[in-house]
Amino acid sequence: MTRKELIAQIRLKQSFLCVGLDPVMEKIPRHLLAYDDPVFEFNKRIIDATSEFAVAYKPNTAFYEALGVKGWESLEKTINYIPKDCFIIADAKRGDIGNTSTAYAKTFFETLPCDAVTVAPYMGKDSVQPFLQFEGKWAIVLALTSNSGAMDFQYHTNFENQPLFAKVISEVKDWGTQENLMFVVGATRAEQLAEIRKIIPDHFLLIPGVGAQGGSLEEVVKAGANAECGLLVNASRSIIYAGSGEDFELYAKKEALNIQSEMALYVQRLMC
Amino acid sequence: MTRKELIAQIRLKQSFLCVGLDPVMEKIPRHLLAYDDPVFEFNKRIIDATSEFAVAYKPNTAFYEALGVKGWESLEKTINYIPKDCFIIADAKRGDIGNTSTAYAKTFFETLPCDAVTVAPYMGKDSVQPFLQFEGKWAIVLALTSNSGAMDFQYHTNFENQPLFAKVISEVKDWGTQENLMFVVGATRAEQLAEIRKIIPDHFLLIPGVGAQGGSLEEVVKAGANAECGLLVNASRSIIYAGSGEDFELYAKKEALNIQSEMALYVQRLMC
Repeated sequence: MTRKELIAQIRLKQSFLCVGLDPVMEKIPRHLLAYDDPVFEFNKRIIDATSEFAVAYKPNTAFYEALGVKGWESLEKTINYIPKDCFIIADAKRGDIGNTSTAYAKTFFETLPCDAVTVAPYMGKDSVQPFLQFEGKWAIVLALTSNSGAMDFQYHTNFENQPLFAKVISEVKDWGTQENLMFVVGATRAEQLAEIRKIIPDHFLLIPGVGAQGGSLEEVVKAGANAECGLLVNASRSIIYAGSGEDFELYAKKEALNIQSEMALYVQRLMC
Repeated sequence: MTRKELIAQIRLKQSFLCVGLDPVMEKIPRHLLAYDDPVFEFNKRIIDATSEFAVAYKPNTAFYEALGVKGWESLEKTINYIPKDCFIIADAKRGDIGNTSTAYAKTFFETLPCDAVTVAPYMGKDSVQPFLQFEGKWAIVLALTSNSGAMDFQYHTNFENQPLFAKVISEVKDWGTQENLMFVVGATRAEQLAEIRKIIPDHFLLIPGVGAQGGSLEEVVKAGANAECGLLVNASRSIIYAGSGEDFELYAKKEALNIQSEMALYVQRLMC
């Protein structure tokens, strides 16, 4: 999906919501366990219930890999089930030497029809560039993450007073364009968003950490949005586990609608 | 596998060779393409030909994922085929927020019987710790990698003149022990090995980059070995693609034997 198409979807759905599809077997409602592929049945119902309100879906590969070959089958089926007007992010946090990153890029962009994959920047340019060689596909590079461990290395600061996350953004932005690069910035770091916007005013940011992790949507928009919205805000657990009974999808729908309703106000303000 | 068992294997086989199992369909000898699972048939023959000379195997997940569900089947079969006296490293370079890293750890330590998984440190402590909660299992954390992109961020140096890779080693070593933590240091950075040994004299290091990437075994041993060897040196392409015909495994065997013969001299010198 191109940047232009993504922005059109945000305008159309009045939403910049990304739903994280992170199924854990113990949390899948009991009645789905009778199916051959409970993970896919769970995701299918979540997607059906929320696709009106979400512009993107983000399955995290860890939760599928943990189930082995069967998990990869569920992942494939899930990704193929996501409606074509939604932006699909493989949250895989990959990154390796050149020929290996190329294999990962093929995994998510050719073997699977994803639009984007999250990429860990530690190994540098030749580990990121292979993801930027595919028309209409995106690398979403980790910059400042939402977890407590972000403090350990991402703030490692050089002689020019530049923390690692800012160095990553400054360097990586020149390896691609606004058409094939986004950055991950956790909602729990809203205070840094304004600083980050000085380096990359126009790139899209993927913002995890709203909801279960405690970040505020209003603060994220205030500090991080731009005239084309420029944000995909992810919620996973707060939506997919909103309910736990046979009617769980109604709770997921209600939660997605709640978030989208708030987002609609921001979209109108930002993009009119 | 425990540290003690690994050291015993190194002594027994007079080798600290790790064989990287990175199969690319275009490079698999033609006669194997007639099989249902050419990737597994290729790996099986490589393992049979080299297990006398190797103490470890390291499949890189990228090359399996690129083939989708069928690739994960090949990966599972390969890992289950590796002899039980060999140390199995899933070269996956994973790392995510806590509950997600836990899912990855389960993937490689429970769903698959790996001994170790490579881990990217960018997201910090809570992204690494879940890999350290499994008895007899290891996290092998990226410190200084063998590729050109290592220069981009791994040398990002703070006010105390500490480059990121040294900070990573200094911090991460306290999150685990010599019994469950190793570090990746590329053979192409042999000049840094002596410095790194000042921070972690006793930990095992996984050293890629000998062979196709041009690192020298002799220099690596000189700067990086300790009295318990303390090294696993990986070779992938130089062994698995040593031959390309129907007798490719003979070339692989010869190349593995060559490396092991040189290693035997070092093992005798270091560990007697």
